[in-house]
Amino acid sequence: MSATPLPAPELGEPYLLTPGPLTTAYSVKQAMLKDWGSWDDDFRAMTRALRSRLLALIGGGASDYDCVPIQGSGSYCVEAMLGSFVPRDGKVLVLANGAYGLRAAQTLGYLERDYHLLDKGDYLPPRGDEVAAILAADPAITHVLAIHCETSSGIQNPVEEIAEATKAAGRKLLIDSMSAFGALPLDPVKLNCAAFVSSANKCIEGVPGFGFVIARKDEIEASKGNSHSLSLDVHAQWATMEKTGQWRFTPPTHVVAAFLKALDLHEAEGGVSARGARYTRNRDVVVQGMRDLGFETLLADRWLSPIIVTFFCPADPSFTFQGFYDAMKARGFIIYPGKLTVVNSFRIGVIGQMDEHVMRRVVEAARDALTDMNVSSAAPPAAALEERKKLAA
Amino acid sequence: MSATPLPAPELGEPYLLTPGPLTTAYSVKQAMLKDWGSWDDDFRAMTRALRSRLLALIGGGASDYDCVPIQGSGSYCVEAMLGSFVPRDGKVLVLANGAYGLRAAQTLGYLERDYHLLDKGDYLPPRGDEVAAILAADPAITHVLAIHCETSSGIQNPVEEIAEATKAAGRKLLIDSMSAFGALPLDPVKLNCAAFVSSANKCIEGVPGFGFVIARKDEIEASKGNSHSLSLDVHAQWATMEKTGQWRFTPPTHVVAAFLKALDLHEAEGGVSARGARYTRNRDVVVQGMRDLGFETLLADRWLSPIIVTFFCPADPSFTFQGFYDAMKARGFIIYPGKLTVVNSFRIGVIGQMDEHVMRRVVEAARDALTDMNVSSAAPPAAALEERKKLAA
Repeated sequence: MSATPLPAPELGEPYLLTPGPLTTAYSVKQAMLKDWGSWDDDFRAMTRALRSRLLALIGGGASDYDCVPIQGSGSYCVEAMLGSFVPRDGKVLVLANGAYGLRAAQTLGYLERDYHLLDKGDYLPPRGDEVAAILAADPAITHVLAIHCETSSGIQNPVEEIAEATKAAGRKLLIDSMSAFGALPLDPVKLNCAAFVSSANKCIEGVPGFGFVIARKDEIEASKGNSHSLSLDVHAQWATMEKTGQWRFTPPTHVVAAFLKALDLHEAEGGVSARGARYTRNRDVVVQGMRDLGFETLLADRWLSPIIVTFFCPADPSFTFQGFYDAMKARGFIIYPGKLTVVNSFRIGVIGQMDEHVMRRVVEAARDALTDMNVSSAAPPAAALEERKKLAA
Repeated sequence: MSATPLPAPELGEPYLLTPGPLTTAYSVKQAMLKDWGSWDDDFRAMTRALRSRLLALIGGGASDYDCVPIQGSGSYCVEAMLGSFVPRDGKVLVLANGAYGLRAAQTLGYLERDYHLLDKGDYLPPRGDEVAAILAADPAITHVLAIHCETSSGIQNPVEEIAEATKAAGRKLLIDSMSAFGALPLDPVKLNCAAFVSSANKCIEGVPGFGFVIARKDEIEASKGNSHSLSLDVHAQWATMEKTGQWRFTPPTHVVAAFLKALDLHEAEGGVSARGARYTRNRDVVVQGMRDLGFETLLADRWLSPIIVTFFCPADPSFTFQGFYDAMKARGFIIYPGKLTVVNSFRIGVIGQMDEHVMRRVVEAARDALTDMNVSSAAPPAAALEERKKLAA
């Protein structure tokens, strides 16, 4: 239980119940009230701190890894990782159960790298035994790409069993931990992970503008010459940072300053475990409260991430997503549309600068929104529950 | 003459005399004190405003053009432009006289696009007759890439005569106007320009985090399928923005908010011509003042841009760049190292939230720095003046 409620955003500003950009602390935004020269020593020291503090979050094995920040969005980092670490004649097993896995496959198409797509649909988890079977059948596969938390459905994928199967088959593991790193434990040594990526504006609670690759140093060194893109060449970015302490091209200086402040707050809260615990409480409060209102989650508890949760839209014909969105926004909460292809849904993110007190207000707002819309029951249509049965099968 | 001095940066914060990131108005940074949901209507309206207001800056021909913002640094935008508008079997004449032209050639190497590099060395301008001769000799060349202002030396390249030669030969013109757009006139219709790029943190005086491509609509439409990169695919970014009003991947929301405020200030100042006039006064004050101290500029007046100016380092053995840098920084000014390969130099940027009053203080600081360092003469070595003679030849 957190004793003291977190401060609210500025007056009139809604909470962002989204998978990022998210609601950040005011002090994180205040860190942007200064300009920095990207060539100057002061900023180089900030870049050094950024890299070493992120590495410190992975714990014991940090000495074998290095951190390379990349300008742009999280998807830029996924592309940078794939283009840099998968050689031109490599082949990737892409484990997809939502938009981010499919986007990685699309990226490999652009990169003209061969891949095998395991597409589990909207939310079914890729399992270790499936990975083992595919790898056994196709010796050409050199890398496996897993999505840590697939925010399309909010599922927390079983990366441990995927990692085990990948290691057993002697292949290399790449992880998209965009929306999970900083709140869910991720030990790359234990997972035998060659590289993973995440972004400034997720569980570290910074503002958007860059992401980062954390990779084994020997993988970075071996990646020279692989990249299809100057801008997204991890090796080149790393080599310049090692030599000069600078980013190759103009960094988002203000966003970097905000991120360092966000890292301070992350540390002060108690690091990855405390951050994960707060998000878990957020999720538990909102899931229980919404279930009490009659809403149903797409996923069984076992697969629910402490990042974002998918709820089925009620079957009641008075319910529309847009009406619900507007009613929630009027109450100070920005929710997120669903991404399921079969049934209507919406998502509520539980990450960002908010706690269980806020999540209780989210539930109250949802209750009042239903009343406003004259929705008498939040129960989903039968098709939704049919859909959900697939998970148990 | 500007009657009222611009407000100083916050107490103790140095002015950035660099080609960007630069000193921005405090109100621009204050615009970042809020979080936005990237899916929400409020932010979509901001993206719409960003695109239409940038198009308005190019004046009459705007209806044939569209504006596509791209996450990342300016070099990302150059890569996006080259990868999207040059077909796989295209060939580019790259007009280089400094780091940015050479980087464009390097980018084309990554992209496996053919190119002809006209490398004029550290600062000599590529001229219209040279372009005409190369295009006449090589019918395989489909595109010409010009650098509007090459900040390596600070030269304002003769884009009009380059454009004329390109049009006469029936080839397509691409312009890197990174450090010039917003302060130097750029009429793509008059120049018959297929596409150009610039960035948030240059003459519009926003903060770094994205850039933008302004291109003929028919060129954008025809570019589908060209790009080597999902992240840097101009057509895909454009198509999604047209359809949904959203960026494909997480935008740097705070940086976008700051940029809209910067556009307000740009407009209030009087647009491109007024911004260019202030920078020109800045340049004239600093060039005259530094010459009065005995410093010499690399370039003759005719080639000096109102963006950044290269000065030769004094021959006096008591002068070191690092000593001068530190002495200037102690007085509140961050200068920029030179990039000449033959002789030592430094650069002073004249763009950003500062005016002639500030530039006079820059000159005073330089005078005091020389005194501190016991430099009795700011005259450059003979080799520097020899170097400069090349321009007259």
